[in-house]
Amino acid sequence: MTGVQALIFDVFGTVVDWRNGVAAEVAKTPLPVDAHAFADAWRDRYQPKMTEVRTGGRAYQPLDILHRENLDYVLADRGLEMAEDARADLNRAWEKLPPCPDSVAGLTRLKAKYMIAPCSNGSIAMMTRIAKFGGLPWDCILGADIARDYKPKHGVYLACADALALPPSQVMMVAAHNGDLEAARAAGLKTAFFPRPTEHGPGQTTDLTATADWDVIATNLEDLAGKMGC
Amino acid sequence: MTGVQALIFDVFGTVVDWRNGVAAEVAKTPLPVDAHAFADAWRDRYQPKMTEVRTGGRAYQPLDILHRENLDYVLADRGLEMAEDARADLNRAWEKLPPCPDSVAGLTRLKAKYMIAPCSNGSIAMMTRIAKFGGLPWDCILGADIARDYKPKHGVYLACADALALPPSQVMMVAAHNGDLEAARAAGLKTAFFPRPTEHGPGQTTDLTATADWDVIATNLEDLAGKMGC
Repeated sequence: MTGVQALIFDVFGTVVDWRNGVAAEVAKTPLPVDAHAFADAWRDRYQPKMTEVRTGGRAYQPLDILHRENLDYVLADRGLEMAEDARADLNRAWEKLPPCPDSVAGLTRLKAKYMIAPCSNGSIAMMTRIAKFGGLPWDCILGADIARDYKPKHGVYLACADALALPPSQVMMVAAHNGDLEAARAAGLKTAFFPRPTEHGPGQTTDLTATADWDVIATNLEDLAGKMGC
Repeated sequence: MTGVQALIFDVFGTVVDWRNGVAAEVAKTPLPVDAHAFADAWRDRYQPKMTEVRTGGRAYQPLDILHRENLDYVLADRGLEMAEDARADLNRAWEKLPPCPDSVAGLTRLKAKYMIAPCSNGSIAMMTRIAKFGGLPWDCILGADIARDYKPKHGVYLACADALALPPSQVMMVAAHNGDLEAARAAGLKTAFFPRPTEHGPGQTTDLTATADWDVIATNLEDLAGKMGC
């Protein structure tokens, strides 16, 4: 990977375990629900809600706000009551996501040689709090807030490279999602994949393997660090 | 300081020693100049050049580009020749600035309790490289690039608070420059000062003491950490 100066990362499902993290916070509430089913329902609204922004029909707003709208929807859809303060607290579940077991060690190794940053659809506010919660050693926080748009729009990857004053070819996008990498490659970035086969729970059927010849294919974040010479 | 969640920092002259850092890089070139005088002349163009953007006469461009224009000006003003590649290399002097002796220890202590980030006129690219060079443990990189404008415009401070999803009253601006704090206070932020009496060399006459009742007045960054309960 001659010339790569920076690695930028998908976060939800690649670096942190959003499903178990959100479910753990749901389980702390008095809501009479299956916590994982509730987390899944909440996350199911994620892509359609961002599409409102991606298609230009809605001005950019940080993901924190979209998550809150989605929470309100899921509660209403199930006929569940919850006070305003409790909703705001629960929305912060997305700031308390445990790193995958190999994430901190892998990032720490990579940081010694490369610039590392999230390129997530999460906001700077959310990513900063997730990093503090889990000890993720980012050099800076990039992503949707920088571009004021959502992945997989190419402008998000390009805005991250531009913020680092690097050409896209010197930036590697890392994700456990083939679709994210397809878009990053189309934008001119290098790509690295490893699977997270239980991101969506035990019955996951998507992104179990690489579906293209990504520049690096690894087994997890520590293996990626080794393959990148760290 | 009840309620403060984040501390944001001026960097040049507050956290890092730009004058000795730039002079050290100038001294590595074959330029027949006094390295500190050259660094001072380069920096003298800093405020007037940013004013072109602040007044709306020029679209926002990152400080890296303004620094390069200022370097070209100082070289031409002194009738000095320098090849394009050497100019680009020397412009990176601003990425190789040594932290002040108390900076890393003070920031590390503060980071345990607060979110910490630069609120500098330097770009994300520049601040990220300065942090890697000196081991500055920022949680994220805020500042001019986030606001696409330059301090002391109030919008820069407000954009940093907004990026952290905090009201200005929960964010403390830290600077060794009274003028920076005047603007931050006017924008609604908390303020903290400590002096850097040799930022501009041994004959410095400005910012030797606090000129207003800033919320915290300290002797350096470690003393600030102590005063903030860290």
